[in-house]
Amino acid sequence: MIRERVDTGHSRYEILIGTGLLGQTGQLLLELSVNRSSRHLIVTDEQVRAAGHLTPLLASLQAAGYEAELFVIPAGEASKRLELAERAFEFAYEAGLDRRSVVLALGGGVVGDFAGFLAATYMRGIPFVQLPTTLLAHDSAVGGKVAVNLSSAKNIIGAFHQPLAVIYDIDALSTLPLREMRSGYAEAIKHGIIRDAELFAWIEARTEQILANDPQVMAELLARSCRIKAEVVSADEREHGVRAILNFGHTIGHAVESLAGYGRLRHGEAIAIGMICAAELSVKMGLCTPDAAEAIASVVKAAGLPTQIPRDLDADELLSSIKRDKKATGGTLTFVLMRAIGKVEIVKDVPEKLVRDVIEDRRES
Amino acid sequence: MIRERVDTGHSRYEILIGTGLLGQTGQLLLELSVNRSSRHLIVTDEQVRAAGHLTPLLASLQAAGYEAELFVIPAGEASKRLELAERAFEFAYEAGLDRRSVVLALGGGVVGDFAGFLAATYMRGIPFVQLPTTLLAHDSAVGGKVAVNLSSAKNIIGAFHQPLAVIYDIDALSTLPLREMRSGYAEAIKHGIIRDAELFAWIEARTEQILANDPQVMAELLARSCRIKAEVVSADEREHGVRAILNFGHTIGHAVESLAGYGRLRHGEAIAIGMICAAELSVKMGLCTPDAAEAIASVVKAAGLPTQIPRDLDADELLSSIKRDKKATGGTLTFVLMRAIGKVEIVKDVPEKLVRDVIEDRRES
Repeated sequence: MIRERVDTGHSRYEILIGTGLLGQTGQLLLELSVNRSSRHLIVTDEQVRAAGHLTPLLASLQAAGYEAELFVIPAGEASKRLELAERAFEFAYEAGLDRRSVVLALGGGVVGDFAGFLAATYMRGIPFVQLPTTLLAHDSAVGGKVAVNLSSAKNIIGAFHQPLAVIYDIDALSTLPLREMRSGYAEAIKHGIIRDAELFAWIEARTEQILANDPQVMAELLARSCRIKAEVVSADEREHGVRAILNFGHTIGHAVESLAGYGRLRHGEAIAIGMICAAELSVKMGLCTPDAAEAIASVVKAAGLPTQIPRDLDADELLSSIKRDKKATGGTLTFVLMRAIGKVEIVKDVPEKLVRDVIEDRRES
Repeated sequence: MIRERVDTGHSRYEILIGTGLLGQTGQLLLELSVNRSSRHLIVTDEQVRAAGHLTPLLASLQAAGYEAELFVIPAGEASKRLELAERAFEFAYEAGLDRRSVVLALGGGVVGDFAGFLAATYMRGIPFVQLPTTLLAHDSAVGGKVAVNLSSAKNIIGAFHQPLAVIYDIDALSTLPLREMRSGYAEAIKHGIIRDAELFAWIEARTEQILANDPQVMAELLARSCRIKAEVVSADEREHGVRAILNFGHTIGHAVESLAGYGRLRHGEAIAIGMICAAELSVKMGLCTPDAAEAIASVVKAAGLPTQIPRDLDADELLSSIKRDKKATGGTLTFVLMRAIGKVEIVKDVPEKLVRDVIEDRRES
């Protein structure tokens, strides 16, 4: 088992990465001093339940003397909405969850965001544990950002709520469809781009093993990628400064994901397109050389991720969505742009014209 | 203007108390460095708007160069629900509010809780300013507890989110109906009971002037009562320990308020009943003398507040509601009980039988 430490100043927790960890969760909760007199809540989705990941978790909780209720949501981004959260709050309350209860988020980013939002706001905040079952969730599970969506925009309603622990059983990844693996892969590529050129090169050389879920390569990838995320989050828990670099590729990516309609593009697919656009915008701004942008497009392509904006998405609508993005402050266009692989920075007052050019160039013809 | 300082360790802010403050709000926001390039959001209710309190606020914001949107909710506890919050989030997003926008909560406890919840979770947290217009809100506006309700229980969905400032214009109290004044008065009495016997005696001697809204007496009452609240909150922002003493009277009070149906009893009315019950429970537990409990019942009665549990509320249902109250942990009954006026403590494992006896004794016959 690999252990990575996160320390945000306000809270400290560990990311545990290894095989067979779902079957050790009860024991790990005992080590974390989670009490056995309160009832707890497992939140998961139908797909994760169908994949069988609940079985070892439930057995290990029971063996350790824990009682847990189960709330299952439909798989997919559409579950991240207040109406479903309200049903979950009612369920938790009726089940007698109290302020010492713990929410266990078993699943991908949607489950983590949704269950984390429940934990952040149920009785003004109870602890939660992330049990990621996807590659993509290595990103969302670390850092404490939790949220649900408005119908018009992602993650508008949320909180910063750090987990008690992240328990990452890489066995769970073996049931992932290839398209899901690829989607998660995009965030690992991003972590290389924003802070670690060596990681980027390491990933570039191991695309096949990663997509084939080679256990050793996967454990190292997750540990390295989580470490970068943890470093950035530790330096800036509430996104007042450096944490914003984690949004590399997300400004255009979110707009593409949202306008395409949730569910049509995977999050990582939209972010892959967004990273290529951000890199090309960096070139147009004179911040980096074209070969750095080409290297990103090439890794994205090798991973089987999309490289172009769907043709039916309109540049005007994308721009207007970008302007309303919560990263915008006071109406100006702010982007995370690249100096080189491994080095990015926050650039304010990016000319709208250049953003439009990049979008037009990257639309399917 | 009286200024009281709150310092929770995580955040610091001031409570400003005086006359004519709504008309100075724009200027006060400038002093707080609230930016003028973002749009802001005033949340208020229909009753407060009808009372004319928006007029000086809007004028002062405009004079200081601020642009603010307006979201008006129906008056009353029923507005504290997620569905209405979702509409407010959508309104704020469509209006272009960003992460540097500020929510201004103009109203009583319902507006403060609701608007504070919006601020705590919109884009994972933006600042908010409390502009209380009721006497009761002197309690809820200080301390950072914000929440909305489940249909079955109060304040289950919420956060700890400290305001940027509390700006308390006591002119606003002049439009309050007497029943509202009495309701707010209950929390001031509570502050005396939990920590300041001298304040309790001071209040006891000034019931008439308080209910008549004598400006000088009112300013002093608010300052003293807010000071106690601020001291307790500063010592324990997240209610891990001493802060729980603020719940004196609230365990039975919340159950009475909730089972009566929101809107039937005012919050302060339910808390008045709850305080008498908690005092009588303290006597039954042998913690304090009967005359201390009688003194509380007498002040409550002099204020024109109810002293008995409505006859149609069933003791079994009240007990089951108390057991599910979020202050319960692991199923035991915990109460804030009284040693003497000015001195309370948290008592775990209170026998259910005694609680039932107190409830039966206090039900209308």
